[in-house]
Parts: sequence; structure tokens; C-alpha cells
Amino acid sequence: MGKTINPSHVAKAFREEIRQRVATLSEPLTLMGILVADQGPSATYAKYTKEGCEQVGVHFDLRTLHRLEVEAQIQAANQDPSVHGVLVYYPVFGTGQDRYLSDLVDPHKDVEGLNMHWARCLYDNVRFVDDDKTKKAILPCTPLAIIKLLEEAGAMTDASPRPLANKKVTIFNRSEVVGRPLASMMSNDGATVFSFDIDGPQLFLPGPEDGGHLIEETNILRKDALAQSDIVVTGVPTRKFDLIQPDEIRDDAICLNFSTLRNFTDEAREKAPVFVPRVGPMTVTMVLRNTLRLYDNTQAP
Amino acid sequence: MGKTINPSHVAKAFREEIRQRVATLSEPLTLMGILVADQGPSATYAKYTKEGCEQVGVHFDLRTLHRLEVEAQIQAANQDPSVHGVLVYYPVFGTGQDRYLSDLVDPHKDVEGLNMHWARCLYDNVRFVDDDKTKKAILPCTPLAIIKLLEEAGAMTDASPRPLANKKVTIFNRSEVVGRPLASMMSNDGATVFSFDIDGPQLFLPGPEDGGHLIEETNILRKDALAQSDIVVTGVPTRKFDLIQPDEIRDDAICLNFSTLRNFTDEAREKAPVFVPRVGPMTVTMVLRNTLRLYDNTQAP
Repeated sequence: MGKTINPSHVAKAFREEIRQRVATLSEPLTLMGILVADQGPSATYAKYTKEGCEQVGVHFDLRTLHRLEVEAQIQAANQDPSVHGVLVYYPVFGTGQDRYLSDLVDPHKDVEGLNMHWARCLYDNVRFVDDDKTKKAILPCTPLAIIKLLEEAGAMTDASPRPLANKKVTIFNRSEVVGRPLASMMSNDGATVFSFDIDGPQLFLPGPEDGGHLIEETNILRKDALAQSDIVVTGVPTRKFDLIQPDEIRDDAICLNFSTLRNFTDEAREKAPVFVPRVGPMTVTMVLRNTLRLYDNTQAP
Repeated sequence: MGKTINPSHVAKAFREEIRQRVATLSEPLTLMGILVADQGPSATYAKYTKEGCEQVGVHFDLRTLHRLEVEAQIQAANQDPSVHGVLVYYPVFGTGQDRYLSDLVDPHKDVEGLNMHWARCLYDNVRFVDDDKTKKAILPCTPLAIIKLLEEAGAMTDASPRPLANKKVTIFNRSEVVGRPLASMMSNDGATVFSFDIDGPQLFLPGPEDGGHLIEETNILRKDALAQSDIVVTGVPTRKFDLIQPDEIRDDAICLNFSTLRNFTDEAREKAPVFVPRVGPMTVTMVLRNTLRLYDNTQAP
């Protein structure tokens, strides 16, 4: 049986690094959380954010509001210079209106890296926001957490600037918040990515220059994609998904699941030399890291 | 039996006005259409756009592309000074990625008025883009088409600046592209709007000053909302919707349906003193009008 990576353990080292940096700041680093539910996954996420903030010395200002108050609270947070980061816990409405809200967050306070400003940086592979390349662009926190966990799992090479050069990856999920940005990030880093979702597979390829990537249609079958893949990432939120079987994956395939549901059979999980069963604590850690980065980016170089 | 309004007839007068204005311009007014389907509703919409453009003298540059080519085409159109308006025919991907594409269109070429820039103007009730109030903000084309048809149907009063002052309205649909912006526009114009959607009703109220509006939760029942409403607008795209019955609406209720499905029984439709059965030709007309407005806004005052 292979090794299982505990994301809480990996998160610990990152949090210690963040804690040390936060301790040197001349003002309290403040993250505002905006929550509309008393219970359920978003309330749990808020609880974990609070714990993470306490561990690293970030002031967490949680506002539990009615859904119709969220828009005004985002606008107030955007205007408030003492707030450095804003994290809205979705769903708020559970409709297209949530995307309106996520785009309403000032990009310079958007710790999730989900709004249009950062999405365009990511898809254009713009990694810095200044000409001197001292201020890094914000990457979306869950895909970034996955990348860091895969790094810990030994999936990356030393090849710079493309640590995933020559790697093949299969990702099941092409959502705007995780699967699509993740596929872009991995192909920007040199990987060939087979991206599966309900509207069919797509192929993400590294571009001719350092960085940018290309996207093509493909008819590749799941079994053929998996048979080639060094890395397999799943995030399918339905029980209708055919769980990944051991004979579908390579002997050396590093596997990660970020769905709250099981996406691998126990046998597949045991076959993988390294398995990452969940991502949550690293997502919270990347929220903290992005809060610090957004703060740093507001400072003179 | 009441009067039925034919949107093609109403569109005609608007198109004539646009045609006269376009004829005075010193360069060809160009609208680029971006389409990924050879048939179906979006191809039909493109065909109607083409006819509309021909009628008013706008050059329609239709690009039929593969879905993965759309992003680069939008970026090229944004950069091309000879293109004055861009109209993407959705669905392209049919996923959250379509919202990414709609936000990628330069607001100054966004004839649909759907992207974040114009959405924020609308929700903040910002009606002009310049301090001198000579350059009007773009309103989303389908809600704007509905407003124009309701005006034709005699739903508005002469009260300025709030032609819907003291009017009560029920809208079934709170989508980001039609129902929600429409509810905001109507309450900005003075109406009390009962907005129904799958996630429950909401109440849109005119604000204390000219313009802005407020949104509140409400538990009002459909029958109680309808019994009070001067105007009833439906846009429910499912056959599961309980069709509106004649005894649910007031004798003087002006009724409009923008769904491609029937949302009123024939009896309810016959009871309404004025009924607007569809909106399509006016939506195309508002696309043409927005193209002209975007062009005008680029000119010196």
C-alpha cells in the first residue's frame, strides 16, 4: 500500500512560514469573512478559516449576514483600508448571482483569486502584476492548494520554469473555480492535461514559449487518458461517477481527490504510490497566503 | 379579447430611427457576431441579427467558429478599432465558462450589456458614463426590449423621472441576463416588483431618492402578488411551471411573456387588456440601438 498524504501536516509548514512573516508586519493583517449560513459546508469552511487565522496571527473579521446584505458588505469591505482580504463563503444565492458577487470583490482584496481580474492573469499566464516582477499575481486558492500537495507528493521535477514538463495529467472536473484553472496552471507548468467534464474532454497543452498554454478538443477515452497519466486528479461531486479502478491507473500514478465524495475505489487508492485524499486544510492555508500576498502587493517595492 | 402586441411592428419604428442615425455616420458601423452552432436557437438569433443589421445599415461581421476559438476572437475584436460592437451567441460551452467569456468582451463593445461593468452601472442605477450626462450607460438588451414593449403596451405613466411610480409588477424569472436586471430597472423607475424564481420570491422597491432601489426578502404568495399587479412578466423555461390562470390576474393587468414556452393559459391571455407574446425582434433592435450608442459614446461630446 502506498503513502497517504495528510494535507493538515503539509499545511503546518506553510502556516509556520506565514506566521513568521505576519509577525513582522507593522499593522494587523485582516481578513473579512462573509457568511450567510449558520451550518453546513460554508459554515465549516468559515470555522476552519478562523482556526487558520488564529494559528498565523491574522485577524479574522467574520460577518454572518442575510444574503441580501452581502453585496453592500462587499462594497464596504472594498472601501475599508483596514481590511486586506475578503472571503465570501458560497453559495450565497446559489444562482448566477453568486458570480456577480465574486466579481464585485476588489481584485486587490480577492483572497480566493476567483474574480475576472485574476482569471485573466491566469489564462494569459501573467505571473506578476508589476514590470519589475516583484509582485506576484494571485492564483485561485483550491487549485493552488492542489499544486502544493502534488509538489509534496513528489509529482514535480526540478525543471525550471516548467516543473511539469513531459508529465501527463488527467483531471476529472472542469469547473470555473477548480478544474479549469488547475488544468491551465498545470499546462502553464509544462504538463499535457486531459480535462474531463460533463461536456466532454479537452486537451490542455503547454505553449511554444515558456508559460502560455493551448486548448484543443480531443476524443480521447477516459481509459486511454488514465493509462498515460503520471498524475490523476478527481473532483467529481456526484455518486453517478464511475469510481476509478486500480487497473485504469499506472503503477506510478500520483493520485489526488478533492471531491467531498469518494472518486477512487479503495483498491485504486491502495495501488497509487502516493494518494492525497483531500485538500481542505491546504485551501485555507492558501487563503492565508494570498491574504499576505495581497498585503505585500500594496506595499512599496 | 384584449389587444396583442406584435414586437416586430414595434421594432419597425425603432429600426427606422436607428437607420436614419446610422446613415449620417462617417464610417461603417460594424457589429461582430460570434457563433458556435450551425443550427438551433443561437443560429436563429444570428440570422435575425443579420436581417436587423441589413435593415438599419449596420455591417454585420459574423464569425462561425469552434468553441475553443471564441476566446481569442473576442480578444481580437476588443483590439480591432473597426469593430464597434461584439455579440457572442450563447451557449458557447454551456458551463460557467460562458460567464468568463461574456466578461471578456470589452464593456465599450458589449452590445448585450451583460458584462460586469454594465451590471454594476445598472445595480447602482448609474445612468450616464460621463459627468456631463451626455453618454448613456448600456442596458442589457432583453430587459430593455421588455421595457420598450411595456411602454408600447401603455404600462408606463408620464411621471418623470419614475414612469412606473406606484405600479406593482410580478416577474417570474430572476436570471442574471433577464429577470434580475429587469426587476432592478423597473424598481429604479419607481415600481414595486415581486420577483419569483426557484430560490423563492424577493421584493424590489424604489429607493428613497430618484433612482436606486432596495431589495428585501418576502414570503408573499404568487396569488397575492398577482392579485395586486398592474404588470405581469413571465420568462419560465420549464413546462413544470403552473400556467397563469385568468382568475389570478387583475382585469387591467398588462401581461408579457418572454419565455419560448407558454406561461399563460389562453384564457388568461385573452383576459389581459394588452398581451405581449414574445420579445425577440425587439431584443435584436436593442442590440442595434446599443451598437449605435456604444459608437456614439466613443465620439467627442
